[in-house]
Amino acid sequence: MGGYDQLKRRTRADYPYFLEYRTRWSDNDMYQHMNNAIYNFLYDSVINSYLFEFCGLKPDSSPQYGMVVHSHNDYFASISFPACAELGLRVNKIGNSSVTYEIALFEKGVQQVKSVGAFIQVWVDRDTGRPSVNGISQHVRDGLQRIIADNNQSKL
Amino acid sequence: MGGYDQLKRRTRADYPYFLEYRTRWSDNDMYQHMNNAIYNFLYDSVINSYLFEFCGLKPDSSPQYGMVVHSHNDYFASISFPACAELGLRVNKIGNSSVTYEIALFEKGVQQVKSVGAFIQVWVDRDTGRPSVNGISQHVRDGLQRIIADNNQSKL
Amino acid sequence: MGGYDQLKRRTRADYPYFLEYRTRWSDNDMYQHMNNAIYNFLYDSVINSYLFEFCGLKPDSSPQYGMVVHSHNDYFASISFPACAELGLRVNKIGNSSVTYEIALFEKGVQQVKSVGAFIQVWVDRDTGRPSVNGISQHVRDGLQRIIADNNQSKL
Amino acid sequence: MGGYDQLKRRTRADYPYFLEYRTRWSDNDMYQHMNNAIYNFLYDSVINSYLFEFCGLKPDSSPQYGMVVHSHNDYFASISFPACAELGLRVNKIGNSSVTYEIALFEKGVQQVKSVGAFIQVWVDRDTGRPSVNGISQHVRDGLQRIIADNNQSKL
Repeated sequence: MGGYDQLKRRTRADYPYFLEYRTRWSDNDMYQHMNNAIYNFLYDSVINSYLFEFCGLKPDSSPQYGMVVHSHNDYFASISFPACAELGLRVNKIGNSSVTYEIALFEKGVQQVKSVGAFIQVWVDRDTGRPSVNGISQHVRDGLQRIIADNNQSKL
Repeated sequence: MGGYDQLKRRTRADYPYFLEYRTRWSDNDMYQHMNNAIYNFLYDSVINSYLFEFCGLKPDSSPQYGMVVHSHNDYFASISFPACAELGLRVNKIGNSSVTYEIALFEKGVQQVKSVGAFIQVWVDRDTGRPSVNGISQHVRDGLQRIIADNNQSKL
Repeated sequence: MGGYDQLKRRTRADYPYFLEYRTRWSDNDMYQHMNNAIYNFLYDSVINSYLFEFCGLKPDSSPQYGMVVHSHNDYFASISFPACAELGLRVNKIGNSSVTYEIALFEKGVQQVKSVGAFIQVWVDRDTGRPSVNGISQHVRDGLQRIIADNNQSKL
Repeated sequence: MGGYDQLKRRTRADYPYFLEYRTRWSDNDMYQHMNNAIYNFLYDSVINSYLFEFCGLKPDSSPQYGMVVHSHNDYFASISFPACAELGLRVNKIGNSSVTYEIALFEKGVQQVKSVGAFIQVWVDRDTGRPSVNGISQHVRDGLQRIIADNNQSKL
């Protein structure tokens, strides 16, 4: 994904898919800023919204689904309720059964990125809970391909 | 607030203030619907957004703030991630130091109301944590008055 | 359930089933106390733990499950992270397809009750999502019966 | 912290401080397992409980506090409500104004570790929100020193 300084310079143009999430009162912690764990809630939400819309994911019935095996996040600046967050998403890498997403959080009306993180999912078969032998299905793969980062420096 | 059947017939026209909240992946529980406790998160959020915008509330410094002493909610139909929720707010009653809010949750694009609930806040002094002797300040009261329900049947 | 004053005098002896939940950093809101919506998370947790242990509930496969149609709560005193909460549970009423639970939150080491609330569930068939025609199954009913409040004043 | 394989072999003996957290109904997501974002809630909670108890942290008044600037987590196996989680904590590194914590999640009664993650905090002055010029105070530093990992391979 590139180093800390590179991530800190990410802009909205680096992400092909965006959703807006209004922050909630309970997102702020005792220091009056959004708690670090809430970022993962939002990252998870934008990834799954994309999977619903473009990859046909149905969490209660799809034969395969993605299980998060790794996550990380760098926090550059804080955001506070009642601001609106804008979540940008792209795919950095697609393997046989794994996907690496990069997600960034912006605040509506503010240029500088607030945080950049990544989730790695392994796609498993619903029946076994084990990685799919034949890898990610073509339909899901096609959907993910639409938002893959096209520059070399973005590969994890 | 009127009985169950009356609440179930609430429409968007019954609420003067609205905010839209995108649901999050984690809002759904194991039954694939938004968990009942999340409604309170959203009710709390629309109330506090209103207090920030129209009543000058600053949670870290205002001399008074509202403490929830009672809440209730009726659930008429479910909503699921990744739908957008629309939260409607009105004030049903303002007492000397207490306020009764009525909140309704709608789903974007769906006419029928999903849930109607109420929060009762007692306004306390920051210094003591006790109800304000002189009651709610005029500035807050003026803000609340702007969204008070004007019909008799809505009084709690 | 009796009025506000009666609920405020509830003691641990009023509840046959107890579980301890350690509070989490994010439970506190900007006023340094547990947020009101977190109470419902804990109420939901103690109810479902009981249903798992004594009523055979399996959220992904049981033919029936309980859907919350009403909740309310009275908050008497606050609790803050990192305290431990003790959740007491009893059943106030069992109908054909509905159950009324009463839940109380205590703080470990503190005598006075912090909050008392209620959840009403309607039991629905998994296949249809509609109330079970023949009502709650005998097995679930037997489990619920074990913690039913036996005094008259507790009936909702 | 060592690589993936090394982290996967962590045992309870690798952590000097432990707290038990009962999982909550809402911790599970639609796949019937604890959602990945909940791990961060628990990591945050065990860190702050330690800071309260051994470093004198008071979130509303301490002159310094730790702000999370980086987090990451590796998920090895899942845990589900209503299990009890046991959170182990140690400090991997103390710099002038930053601290690296390593946290592991175990399930009560199960030997193998479920996840291992890290949080990096930068300690800032309450007045400015900027890193403390003189670094972390001696009192906090002494508290953190008590659970520092003493082996070389644990350094991040």
